Amino acid sequence: MMSGNYDYFSPIPAQREVARDLYEQVQHLPLICPHGHVDPRLFADEDYQFGSPVDLLIIPDHYIFRMLYSQGISLESLGIPRRDGGDTESDHRRVWQIFAEHFYLFRGTPTGIWLRDELASVFGIDEKLNGDNAQAIYDAIAEKLTQPEFQPRNLYDQFNIEVLATTDKATDTLPHHQTIRKSGWHGRIIPTFRPDAVVNIDTEGWQDNVARLSDMSGISIHNYSFFISALEQRRAYFKSMGATATDHAALTAYTEQLSSGEANAIFQRALRGEAADEDARRFTGHMLIEMARMSVEDGLVMQIHVGSYRNHNQAIFEMFGRDMGADIPIASEFTRNLKPLLDAYGSDSSLTLILFNLDESAYSRELAPLAGHYPALKLGPPWWFFDSLNGMARFFEMVMETAGLYNTAGFNDDTRAFLSIPARHDVWRRASADWLAGLVLRRIVDEEDAVAMMHDMGYGLAKKAYRLD
Amino acid sequence: MMSGNYDYFSPIPAQREVARDLYEQVQHLPLICPHGHVDPRLFADEDYQFGSPVDLLIIPDHYIFRMLYSQGISLESLGIPRRDGGDTESDHRRVWQIFAEHFYLFRGTPTGIWLRDELASVFGIDEKLNGDNAQAIYDAIAEKLTQPEFQPRNLYDQFNIEVLATTDKATDTLPHHQTIRKSGWHGRIIPTFRPDAVVNIDTEGWQDNVARLSDMSGISIHNYSFFISALEQRRAYFKSMGATATDHAALTAYTEQLSSGEANAIFQRALRGEAADEDARRFTGHMLIEMARMSVEDGLVMQIHVGSYRNHNQAIFEMFGRDMGADIPIASEFTRNLKPLLDAYGSDSSLTLILFNLDESAYSRELAPLAGHYPALKLGPPWWFFDSLNGMARFFEMVMETAGLYNTAGFNDDTRAFLSIPARHDVWRRASADWLAGLVLRRIVDEEDAVAMMHDMGYGLAKKAYRLD
Amino acid sequence: MMSGNYDYFSPIPAQREVARDLYEQVQHLPLICPHGHVDPRLFADEDYQFGSPVDLLIIPDHYIFRMLYSQGISLESLGIPRRDGGDTESDHRRVWQIFAEHFYLFRGTPTGIWLRDELASVFGIDEKLNGDNAQAIYDAIAEKLTQPEFQPRNLYDQFNIEVLATTDKATDTLPHHQTIRKSGWHGRIIPTFRPDAVVNIDTEGWQDNVARLSDMSGISIHNYSFFISALEQRRAYFKSMGATATDHAALTAYTEQLSSGEANAIFQRALRGEAADEDARRFTGHMLIEMARMSVEDGLVMQIHVGSYRNHNQAIFEMFGRDMGADIPIASEFTRNLKPLLDAYGSDSSLTLILFNLDESAYSRELAPLAGHYPALKLGPPWWFFDSLNGMARFFEMVMETAGLYNTAGFNDDTRAFLSIPARHDVWRRASADWLAGLVLRRIVDEEDAVAMMHDMGYGLAKKAYRLD
Repeated sequence: MMSGNYDYFSPIPAQREVARDLYEQVQHLPLICPHGHVDPRLFADEDYQFGSPVDLLIIPDHYIFRMLYSQGISLESLGIPRRDGGDTESDHRRVWQIFAEHFYLFRGTPTGIWLRDELASVFGIDEKLNGDNAQAIYDAIAEKLTQPEFQPRNLYDQFNIEVLATTDKATDTLPHHQTIRKSGWHGRIIPTFRPDAVVNIDTEGWQDNVARLSDMSGISIHNYSFFISALEQRRAYFKSMGATATDHAALTAYTEQLSSGEANAIFQRALRGEAADEDARRFTGHMLIEMARMSVEDGLVMQIHVGSYRNHNQAIFEMFGRDMGADIPIASEFTRNLKPLLDAYGSDSSLTLILFNLDESAYSRELAPLAGHYPALKLGPPWWFFDSLNGMARFFEMVMETAGLYNTAGFNDDTRAFLSIPARHDVWRRASADWLAGLVLRRIVDEEDAVAMMHDMGYGLAKKAYRLD
Repeated sequence: MMSGNYDYFSPIPAQREVARDLYEQVQHLPLICPHGHVDPRLFADEDYQFGSPVDLLIIPDHYIFRMLYSQGISLESLGIPRRDGGDTESDHRRVWQIFAEHFYLFRGTPTGIWLRDELASVFGIDEKLNGDNAQAIYDAIAEKLTQPEFQPRNLYDQFNIEVLATTDKATDTLPHHQTIRKSGWHGRIIPTFRPDAVVNIDTEGWQDNVARLSDMSGISIHNYSFFISALEQRRAYFKSMGATATDHAALTAYTEQLSSGEANAIFQRALRGEAADEDARRFTGHMLIEMARMSVEDGLVMQIHVGSYRNHNQAIFEMFGRDMGADIPIASEFTRNLKPLLDAYGSDSSLTLILFNLDESAYSRELAPLAGHYPALKLGPPWWFFDSLNGMARFFEMVMETAGLYNTAGFNDDTRAFLSIPARHDVWRRASADWLAGLVLRRIVDEEDAVAMMHDMGYGLAKKAYRLD
Repeated sequence: MMSGNYDYFSPIPAQREVARDLYEQVQHLPLICPHGHVDPRLFADEDYQFGSPVDLLIIPDHYIFRMLYSQGISLESLGIPRRDGGDTESDHRRVWQIFAEHFYLFRGTPTGIWLRDELASVFGIDEKLNGDNAQAIYDAIAEKLTQPEFQPRNLYDQFNIEVLATTDKATDTLPHHQTIRKSGWHGRIIPTFRPDAVVNIDTEGWQDNVARLSDMSGISIHNYSFFISALEQRRAYFKSMGATATDHAALTAYTEQLSSGEANAIFQRALRGEAADEDARRFTGHMLIEMARMSVEDGLVMQIHVGSYRNHNQAIFEMFGRDMGADIPIASEFTRNLKPLLDAYGSDSSLTLILFNLDESAYSRELAPLAGHYPALKLGPPWWFFDSLNGMARFFEMVMETAGLYNTAGFNDDTRAFLSIPARHDVWRRASADWLAGLVLRRIVDEEDAVAMMHDMGYGLAKKAYRLD
C-alpha cells in the first residue's frame, strides 16, 4: 500500500516527530473492523465486480452526494436510482465529470481526505481530481477494477484486515456468510445482529417483519413471550455464525423496564396495528433493557447508536428512500435516559455496552462520566460526521480525561465503502498518534505508556471490546 | 492604514509563516459588509460629525459598557442616556477617564483587540490606554475627528469598503439611502429588509407598526392577505433601493406552515389585541416560511438570527431600553424546528437562507449537517459573542468538515461601530489564514487549494452568498 | 517541595518558554483554598494520623475508586466500607496491590497526574507505580506518614497555604474550627456555610435537620419566618468563626421568588411530610434568592454548584452510600433559570455570586454572557470532571473572551484529599501560564498584561472574589 504525501500530524516539529514514531508502531498492524456496513456478497461471490467508478465511489456513498446535493446538484444527475424507477443519469462518465468539477467542495472534509487517500493508495492516482483530468482518472480506475487484485477477497488481504463485521437484520438467514464459511476462504467476515426492524414497533412494515421472524425462527409469534424466544433463538443463530455483537439504533437513549404484562399489551396493540407513538417509544426503551439482559446471558457485545433524525428531507425520502444523506443529528440525553438500563445491568461486568452518539456536548458532560463509572459501559469512537480529524481530536480531548482510555472501544470504520476502509483506519491511527505525541511532549504520559496506548488505540481496544480474540 | 504589531497567528513558526503569506493575499482586498447596523445617516449627511470620543466609542457600544457595568460601574456614570431623561454623566472626559482606568478589563477580549486596532490603525495611537494617558489620548482622538479625512465618506474609501448593507425596518422609507443615491456619491450603501416589528405580533406597539405599514404601502391591512401584500410591496421597494437581503430575528428557530385561514385568525386576534403567546410563536414560525416563499420569488437572500433572549436585565431595560448589553443566549434547536421550512423550500436552489445562532453546541450537531445537505442553506459566520478569535477557531473546527467551506457565507461585521469595521474584518482574515495554514501544514489541503479558500473566505463567499455581484 | 519532570506546557518551544517564565512568577506564591472539603479535624487534632496509604489515598478518593470500579473491580475489594457493615477487604496491602496493578488505567487522566505529582513532591517517590513495585512504594509512603513533618499542620506550612476553607453544614457547631482557633496555631482554617440539608426540603431526614437547626439556633422553627431567622443566625455564627462564603448545591439553577405566604405554605407541608416534588423544586429556587438577599446583607460570598445528578447508581448508593463516584452531570440551563435571582440582586455590586457548573456547553452560551453583564456574578473555575488540563483549556477558550478574566474567580481545589492540594493548584497555575503564553505569542496581550493576569489567576482573583483580604 502506497503512502501519500499527507500526514495530518501537528505542525509542531517535535510533536510531528513523536507522532510519526508512534504511528509507525501500528501502521502495519492488521485492521480490526468490528462494526460496518460492507455487503457480505463481496466476499461470497468469487466473481464479484464493483461496476463502474461511479457504481463504486458515488452512487453508494451518501457522504459524497449529500455535499453535491447541498450545492444544488440533483441526485438524478448523479445517477442515484429513484424509488419510482424514473429517469436518472445513466451515463456514468457524465456523473463522474460533475463530481470531478465539484471536487473542490470537499476541501478540508473527511470525505475529501478519504477519497484522496483511496485514489492514491488503492488506485495509484496522485493527481488532484478536477474537470480536466476527470475522464483520464475515470479510465484509470475502470482499468484497475478489471484486474484480479481488485477482487474483494484480494483487497481484504491487501488491506491487512483481520476481521470484518457486517450488519444484518434479525431475520436475515445470512446466506453470504454461509457461502463464505463453506468456501474455505481464510477471511473472517462475521455478522452483527441488528434487530431494529422487529424491535421498533413503529418501523414501516413491522408486522411483516414479525411474520418473517416467525418463519425464520419456527416460532409462531403471537405474544410477547414468543417474540422474546424468537429473538433469543436468532441471536443464538447469529452467534453460531460468528457474531460477537448486536447493534441497536434509537432516536433517543430512553430506557424503561416494563412488566411482561405491559410489554405484551403494547405488543398486542402493535400486532393489531393500534400502537400509539408513546407505545413505540416505551417498547423500544424496554427492548433495549431486554437486549442488555440477553447480552448478559449470551455474551454478545451490545452496541447502541443514538441521536440521528432519519430522512429529514421529506421530498428526498419519497423520491429516493433511506440513507440519502438527509439524516440529521438531534440533542441527546443519557444521564436520565440510560438510568433504568444501567440500574439493571450497568454494574454487571459480563455485559459490554458500547455507546455511539451524535451530540458532542454529551461527551464530557454525560458519556465520559458514565463510562468512567459503570463497568458495563464503553464509549464507541466518534461516529458518522465526527469520524474526522477534528471529530477525533475533540473526542480525545473531551472524553479521555474523565472516562479513561480503557473505557473506550478503539476504532470502527462504520462504512459501506469497502475501499475506503484503510484510509479511515489510517486517519484514526494518525489522529491517535498525534494526540499521544501531545501528551508525551506535555509530559502527561511518558513514552513507554504512549507506546502501549498507541497499540491499544490502533488495535487492541477494538479487539478486546468486541471480544474478537 | 497602519498595521499594528499584533498578528493573532499560531505561535508555531511554520504555521505563522504560511498564515502570513495567505493573509497577505487578501489583506488589501475590498471589504464586503453584507450585514450590519451602521446608521445610513453617516453617508447621507455630508457634514456628519461623530461627536466626542465618548459619543463615538463608548455610548453606542454595548460590548464596551457591558463589561464596565459587569464590574459595578453604573451606566449613568458612562453617560448612557436614560429613558426617563434622568441625569447621567455629561462630562465626556470623566467618562473617558473611567473607561481608561478600566481598560485592563478588556485584556484578551475581542473588544480589547478591536479597540487597540482601531486606535492604532485609524487614529495612529499606539499607546496602551490607561488612567495616566487617558486625557492625552482623548485629545488626540478628538483632534483627529475634526479632520476632513474622518468624514464617514472618506473613511469608507480609506477602509476600502466595496459595499455596506444597513439594517432597516419594513416601514422605513429609507430617506438616507435615497439621499445617498441622489448625491451621486460612488459608495454602495444598501438597505436590508428587517420586518420583525410587523411580523412578530408580540412586538411592543405591533398594532401601530401595522398601521404604519398600511400607510407606507398604501394598502389598508385589515386581514392577513393584505398584510402579505403589503410586505411583498415593501420588499419590492427595498429591492428597488438596492437591497439584496432580508433579516429576521427570532427567539427560536421554530417554523410551522399555517393555512391562510389559521394565519388570518391569529392575525385578527392580534389586531384586536387578543393574541396569546402561543399565537405569537406560531405566527412567527409561519411567517418565517412565508418569508422564505417570498425570497424564492423575489430573489432576496434570507437571514435568520436565532437564540438571543433580549433585555434579560429588567431594571436596565426599564431605565435604559434595548441593546444595553443584557441580551443573553439560550440553547437552540434546529433539526426539528426548521423542518417545516426546509421541507417547503430547503431543496430549492433559488433560495439562499443564511443562519446565525448563539449556541455553539448546535454547530457540529445540527447546523453543519443541515447546511451540508440542503441546497438553500448556508451558515453565517460566528455571531456576536463568537465574533472573536476563539469563536472563529471553534466555528472552523466544528463546522467546516461536515458543512464544507462552500456552504458557509464568509464574514459579516454586524456592527454599529463604523470605525471598528476594518479591525473586525482583519481579525476574520487573520483567523481564516491561520486555520488554513494549519490545514496546509497538516497536509489536509495543498497550497493551491488554500490560496483559493483564502480568497473565498476573505472576499468571495460573502459576495456570492449575498448576491452582491 | 520537589519539582517533577513534567510541565504540561505546550509543545511549541516559544510558548513553553514564555509559559515557564510566567509560571515561575507565581510558582511560590501562597495557595488560596477558598472552597474544599478537607476535614477540619486534621488541624484540630494535633496528633492526627492519616492511617495507611490506602486510608490516605484510596478509600476517601472517589476519583480513584470510580475508575477501578468502571473496570470491574468491586468496591469491597478496595476496602470501601459498606453501609450494612458487611465484609470488605481489610488488608490494605492487597488493596494497594490491586490499585498498583491497575494504575495504567489513569494514563492521561487528572487523577493520574495529581497522584504522580503527590507521590513525587510529597513522598519523594519518582517511580511509576505498578504491580512489581507496589509493596515497596506502600512501605515508603507508610514510613513517611509516621514522620512529624507529615503532621497536617506541618504540611499546611510546607504547602504554603494562606487560607483553607472547609465546607460545613448549617447545623454544625464547628467544634474543630473552635479548637483550631483556641490552639493559637497560625493557620487560617475557615468554615463555609452550606445549608443544603435544611434548605432543600427533599433531603433525606429534612425534618430532623430542621429540628437540629432549632436546637442549634435556639429558635423554635415552626414556620417559615422562624426558619429564615434561624438561618440568618447561623450565618452570623459562621461569619463570627471566620467564614467569608456560603455554598449551595442544586440539581438545576431554577430560581423563583415566592411570597412569604407561599413559602410558608410549602414549609408547613414539608414539616408535615406532605411536600410534593414541585414544592421542593420551587422552595429550593426560592431559597437561592433568599440566600442572595442574606448575602447582600451580611456580605458572605455566595457559591452555587449546579448540575450533578447524585447517586446515579442505585445499587452502589444502597450498599455504600453517597459520594461513591456515581454522580453524573446533566444538561443545565441558566439564562431563564437565574433570571428571577438576577432581577432581584444581580445588579447589586455588594453581592458576589460565584457559579459552578458541569455542562460546558453553557460556558460560552450562557455563563460567560451572564458574567460579562451582571455585577454580582462571577464564574468559578472548571469544576469536578473539568478540573483538568483540558477542562481548564476549554474554560479559558470558551469563557474569557466574553466574560473577561475579571469576572472569573481564580482557582479552587474543591478536594477532600489534603495531600493533593499542591498538585491541583500547580496544574491550574501551569495551565494558566500556558494559556497566557499563547495570548502573548499571538500578540493578543502584551507581556506586561500577561504578568498581571498571571498573578491574578494564580493568586489574586480567588483572594478578592472570596473576600479573603
